[in-house]
Amino acid sequence: MSQGSKLSDELNSLKKLFIIVGNKASTGDFNLNDLPGSGGRMDIICRFIAQSLFISHGIREDSGVITILLGEPDPPRSIFVHGGKVRYMSPDERNVAGLIRKALRHKSEEWKETSPGIFIAKKSINEVLSDLNDFSMFYLREDGRDIFDLSNEPEEKMAFIIGDHLGVKEDIEELILKKVKETISVSPLSLQADQCVVIIHNFLDRLEELEC
Amino acid sequence: MSQGSKLSDELNSLKKLFIIVGNKASTGDFNLNDLPGSGGRMDIICRFIAQSLFISHGIREDSGVITILLGEPDPPRSIFVHGGKVRYMSPDERNVAGLIRKALRHKSEEWKETSPGIFIAKKSINEVLSDLNDFSMFYLREDGRDIFDLSNEPEEKMAFIIGDHLGVKEDIEELILKKVKETISVSPLSLQADQCVVIIHNFLDRLEELEC
Repeated sequence: MSQGSKLSDELNSLKKLFIIVGNKASTGDFNLNDLPGSGGRMDIICRFIAQSLFISHGIREDSGVITILLGEPDPPRSIFVHGGKVRYMSPDERNVAGLIRKALRHKSEEWKETSPGIFIAKKSINEVLSDLNDFSMFYLREDGRDIFDLSNEPEEKMAFIIGDHLGVKEDIEELILKKVKETISVSPLSLQADQCVVIIHNFLDRLEELEC
Repeated sequence: MSQGSKLSDELNSLKKLFIIVGNKASTGDFNLNDLPGSGGRMDIICRFIAQSLFISHGIREDSGVITILLGEPDPPRSIFVHGGKVRYMSPDERNVAGLIRKALRHKSEEWKETSPGIFIAKKSINEVLSDLNDFSMFYLREDGRDIFDLSNEPEEKMAFIIGDHLGVKEDIEELILKKVKETISVSPLSLQADQCVVIIHNFLDRLEELEC
């Protein structure tokens, strides 16, 4: 994706997209030795990215992640990672955080690739979601319909939106609810965002296997 | 658990136990800034512990983790974390790694509590499994029976054993297979150890909800 091109072009090759809102996640420099504090719970963001993309000894090339970072000093900023294109990423939090920190050094307004497969832009969640018209969007919330009820008809392209440990603020949630097809849940318990991703992937992997 | 007491006493209050074999995981000091290299993929161990215990804003008090560390300089060493007793742990890898490193400084042969809810001993997997007679043990491997087939009759106490990115060596696997009730799998894909834990928890959480 060259600078200024639309996010939607880059999403063409992806089937699954995971989107997290990081309410306090840093939009500037932060300390790799203190992701929870200095990074504004950047550890949650890193685990979310890793769980969206990695399997054992491999990466999900049909999956992508977008993180909407809303912490200081320069919110909002959004980072997109393309599973089929990302390089030099390993699943440990510190590695993922290093790549995020590098991306945040670029102050581009439009989408810019800061390392292979990692892109950043000064975009709000509203702007990001507007580029996802090809995707059936689902919002994750504890009171949603069980994902297992989505049964045997997975959509061609699905996007899942979730909040971090602070959830999603009311005004942003209203925005999301206007865009999504349905609100879903994955567990009778309230789980961490990256745990939800693992369960969604497993659900879709099982459906895909049934289709074969 | 005072020094020298048996692991089995400490396991009485736990219903779910997750056991990982860390083939290269450090048994001495390691660098918190390089968990994959210096720690011998200690990042995998840390994520495994975190996913076994944490949910959103809470901890699973009925769950525990045992990590069998087989890396240099002093293998084997085993660390046990009790979800109902552990304190000062947060789910980020660096925090968990710090507590492991602290435990490894204690050279006790028998189980010793090195911080609240965290215990270490110079025990092999054989010695550890011998203390788990109250548990129905399951071994995780890609060719196992789908966990979803375990249907509506969860055991009272279940232990799940899994390898890290290198799997489990043949001699250790033989040992495990003698002890376990069954070999199970959780996904049509080969997943990371901590991802398997998330899926097992979700399976059991759903069964528990059905029972209510």
